[in-house]
Amino acid sequence: MTQTYTEEKSVAGRRRVLKAGAGLMAAPMLGAMAASSGNRGGIRNDPSAAAAQNVRAVGAKSATAPLGSLTISRRAVGPRDVLLDILYCGVCHSDIHTVRGEWGPTQYPCVPGHEIVGRVIAVGTEVTKFQVGDIGGVGCIVDSCGVCEPCQDDLEQYCEKGMTQTYGSPDAHTGGYTFGGYSDRVVVKDHFVIRIPPGADLAAMAPLLCAGVTTFSPMQHWKLERGQRVGVVGMGGLGHVAVQLAAARHAEVTVFTTTSSKLGDAKRLGATDAVLSTDAAAMKAHAGKFDLIISTVPNGYPMQAFIDLLKLNGTLVNVGAMEPLKEVKGLHLAIGRRALAGSIIGGIAETQEVVDYCAARNIKAQVQLIRPDEINTAFEGVIDKSVRYRYVIDFASSKRAG
Amino acid sequence: MTQTYTEEKSVAGRRRVLKAGAGLMAAPMLGAMAASSGNRGGIRNDPSAAAAQNVRAVGAKSATAPLGSLTISRRAVGPRDVLLDILYCGVCHSDIHTVRGEWGPTQYPCVPGHEIVGRVIAVGTEVTKFQVGDIGGVGCIVDSCGVCEPCQDDLEQYCEKGMTQTYGSPDAHTGGYTFGGYSDRVVVKDHFVIRIPPGADLAAMAPLLCAGVTTFSPMQHWKLERGQRVGVVGMGGLGHVAVQLAAARHAEVTVFTTTSSKLGDAKRLGATDAVLSTDAAAMKAHAGKFDLIISTVPNGYPMQAFIDLLKLNGTLVNVGAMEPLKEVKGLHLAIGRRALAGSIIGGIAETQEVVDYCAARNIKAQVQLIRPDEINTAFEGVIDKSVRYRYVIDFASSKRAG
Repeated sequence: MTQTYTEEKSVAGRRRVLKAGAGLMAAPMLGAMAASSGNRGGIRNDPSAAAAQNVRAVGAKSATAPLGSLTISRRAVGPRDVLLDILYCGVCHSDIHTVRGEWGPTQYPCVPGHEIVGRVIAVGTEVTKFQVGDIGGVGCIVDSCGVCEPCQDDLEQYCEKGMTQTYGSPDAHTGGYTFGGYSDRVVVKDHFVIRIPPGADLAAMAPLLCAGVTTFSPMQHWKLERGQRVGVVGMGGLGHVAVQLAAARHAEVTVFTTTSSKLGDAKRLGATDAVLSTDAAAMKAHAGKFDLIISTVPNGYPMQAFIDLLKLNGTLVNVGAMEPLKEVKGLHLAIGRRALAGSIIGGIAETQEVVDYCAARNIKAQVQLIRPDEINTAFEGVIDKSVRYRYVIDFASSKRAG
Repeated sequence: MTQTYTEEKSVAGRRRVLKAGAGLMAAPMLGAMAASSGNRGGIRNDPSAAAAQNVRAVGAKSATAPLGSLTISRRAVGPRDVLLDILYCGVCHSDIHTVRGEWGPTQYPCVPGHEIVGRVIAVGTEVTKFQVGDIGGVGCIVDSCGVCEPCQDDLEQYCEKGMTQTYGSPDAHTGGYTFGGYSDRVVVKDHFVIRIPPGADLAAMAPLLCAGVTTFSPMQHWKLERGQRVGVVGMGGLGHVAVQLAAARHAEVTVFTTTSSKLGDAKRLGATDAVLSTDAAAMKAHAGKFDLIISTVPNGYPMQAFIDLLKLNGTLVNVGAMEPLKEVKGLHLAIGRRALAGSIIGGIAETQEVVDYCAARNIKAQVQLIRPDEINTAFEGVIDKSVRYRYVIDFASSKRAG
């Protein structure tokens, strides 16, 4: 595959790809891109990037409509922008929440997708972080104020002005709303593009940009250490990555799932124990044992059963459930000085960190590739929990075919 | 007062009192006690302590009955026990919760009181921490297993076997339930008796044993530092001490109260700002500002308004409200990586620490002394928030008179 790819490149492009490392499991670039070079209108390497361009996308026109093919506009590449030709995009449960308007008002058409891996096909003149031919990743954030204290502290996800999310946020460049990675190309400010290490399995890397950093970040913030006991609630797209990340820290990981067929997978991925959370006796046997519990459950759920699993000074962190809390007893927080916390994704530096961390340890999301036109079926598979464990839209194959 | 007191003592007793320091603002001992000396049945100094004894108390016979005079039994003083002649006992809102059965089933008769200051009138033969004549304090805990990890870590309040609370807990010594400090005397294991520094204002010291340590402990655990912004919700028995404790750490303290007449007091006690929490505009002006908020509200309340006051990584700690949480939005915890936590009282070493800390800085509870027969009226004053700021039952005056 790498062979085919490099053969299609210009000489200049070939040099860069080889520098980036052989063995990239990546798709070849579009023919259109491969032909481009030069520096026009402040843009390097792809003349199409000098103006706004229409690109194909997959999105929804209302909360109840199925997703379908759309044409959206991508802005002209500015001096600090990167144009990515999208190869893979993970399907996150929050894509479904947003498309269906479950997390507040959604702007339509809505093009979701914030686990994007693509090839750099143009960069603005001031960009030094990337060169054409590099592989870049985009997670949940494409802009932030850059000057507030959280931004200065590499915590763009908590930007005081509000981060610009990859999709569905007001877009200062266009006056409209941002469109995500279920699309052919995307233009993103260089700071918000993650470097994907040479040799990476690109499809398996995509989910790290949301699922990975979302579970990695609380392990960092709450300082999960070797030998500590950590619970991972939910063995889905986030949970199955969280198990691997926690096991890599030499924490003792217990997975809680409602799906018995996932128990074996949990152990295979590094859990020392896996528990059916519907088994009251098993739950009771784990009471008061955990330093940290990371719940990846994407909807409101009865949290008290998991708070009771915390040991003294333990913390339950919700990274998925954004609904009002139900059935949480103040008394059970106080007895044991427990905390209930929330955390969203991670900053750009932390996203880079988890990508590098996983690449160095061969930690991968377990993915099922789908075609763009299979997205509605995939949404159902996420909701009915049949996915094992992350659907990733494969834009690369069609580009190879083309 | 000290003069009168020492004149009533035996020679041996007098020596110990003078060693403890002149100028104690304490009541004289009971005549019966003053006549005692010697070492009988493993007990030093008070022959009455060698056997179980009946003492006067104030308590309730049911959840709906007013409190009245009772006679209860105190156990014989064992080798590691201390017999205190009670001088002062604070009135805590949790006394009311318990008497009225609001925190689960209560055993009746119920004798509340866990802010006890008294004079040591007998000690077991193995006791070295106290001598007759010393002033001792008893807070919320009178026993714990002593061997579990929390106990070994000076966190007896989180004993894995369950602490024995000063009142209403199963009493391993008697087979019944513990009786609290609304009484004439109490027998407590020496480890659980706090040394009250010489020269202390004893009535004002009593509330530190619960209200003080309950608010001090989260400041220690969550590491409230100089210059940080801390909110204190509720300006009652706990809150008015919390303000002083936080100001002493050079934190910037804002008090939130529903009572406008308390705003001035809050500032007088060290708050830099005081806010009516019913004033939506004022609340909004404080959004996202606080590193730590300690809520002393003793009942369930809408917490979301206070969670919204937290800055990034901030924590809201409830030390009073034990009810199920209502109207807390998971999303608002996640945005800002905020935590909602609970904390109960503090360990014995920490209780000693806050007592010493306050004595060294002249931090006092602001107390209103009441007679034991005024307790029902006092309960009403706590509930209707007219107390300024802690009722303390004065057993000392009647003992002086007697």
